[in-house]
Amino acid sequence: MTTSPARTRLSPAARRAQLLELGAHLFATRSVDEISIDVLAEEASVSRGLLYHYFGSKQDFRLAVIRHAVEDLVEKTAPPAEGEPIERMLASLGVYVDYVLANLTLYRSLVRAAAGGTDEIRALYETGRFALTDRIFREDAEGQILTDTPQSRLVVRGWSAMTEEMVLTWADDPSVMTRDELLAVLALSLPALVGTSLPDE
Amino acid sequence: MTTSPARTRLSPAARRAQLLELGAHLFATRSVDEISIDVLAEEASVSRGLLYHYFGSKQDFRLAVIRHAVEDLVEKTAPPAEGEPIERMLASLGVYVDYVLANLTLYRSLVRAAAGGTDEIRALYETGRFALTDRIFREDAEGQILTDTPQSRLVVRGWSAMTEEMVLTWADDPSVMTRDELLAVLALSLPALVGTSLPDE
Repeated sequence: MTTSPARTRLSPAARRAQLLELGAHLFATRSVDEISIDVLAEEASVSRGLLYHYFGSKQDFRLAVIRHAVEDLVEKTAPPAEGEPIERMLASLGVYVDYVLANLTLYRSLVRAAAGGTDEIRALYETGRFALTDRIFREDAEGQILTDTPQSRLVVRGWSAMTEEMVLTWADDPSVMTRDELLAVLALSLPALVGTSLPDE
Repeated sequence: MTTSPARTRLSPAARRAQLLELGAHLFATRSVDEISIDVLAEEASVSRGLLYHYFGSKQDFRLAVIRHAVEDLVEKTAPPAEGEPIERMLASLGVYVDYVLANLTLYRSLVRAAAGGTDEIRALYETGRFALTDRIFREDAEGQILTDTPQSRLVVRGWSAMTEEMVLTWADDPSVMTRDELLAVLALSLPALVGTSLPDE
């Protein structure tokens, strides 16, 4: 940091957003449990009082950091507006993989916290997962990638769990396959899966 | 229960196994956290002292019940010795789906506990998952179903996460597709996935 955020004149909303950005960098390599006002205060030279003012409580701060990370992931993985469906899927998955790698400790702990932890964290995780997969069914300039049926929603949910599991496992040992091979498996598997599930279409 | 297990003459190993069987029935509809010596003692009219004698402690009893459930799942889902690979896979998956349905509360809570909970429970869960997927690579009378490579191991791990997610989601709303359709998606998806991942073979 070359400038201290506490000394910059900003609107309250912009200051809060700036603090969350700082938090995003700081907590990418820490677990959900380690997200704390104390750490941000210390590492970014911001007063604890200011952080409590903006975020309310330790737990609200933790949830705000997680929400920011989830929204950031959803935003960054938006597929490009144009191109073949498979190319757009590959681009989106590439950003997803890079995001998970860059935030590996936080992401892994979020998956665990969502599975085993509090309802609020699980809700944030599910919101993110929904946003990441729902776009597969939304109409856009290029049309829907998949037909929106309860069956294909179920398959996409399974595919989403598979994607997360494979990316997190691959991150532990990237020598198993190249990043491009991983992306190809993930992107091609979705039409392959839907092909197995909708034999009547 | 028409007979009380405490009054039947059995070897210690057989008595312990019988108590675990009782526990398996009793805790199928309860969560991991609810597995307790007190509940089994009350519902099966067995003395607490006897249960502590066989299982050591509350936590050891909980782990023994989970281990028994995992081993039971692995044993019951062993594919038939003969038949086409896809038929054997369908048979095994059919048992898996029925087992999850019959033990839904316990299974769902085990997945959560494994993700978020103690190392011992996670280890039991991972052991079961390994046993369920490793057999796909083992030689048997009909040969391996898949070539054993680090790439196909990664894909099978993803497929396994997908299977679990889809079965648990489907269990909440089985009207989405029939049991046979679900089994077909799961069984056919494995070769479809491996096909996308091994373009050079």
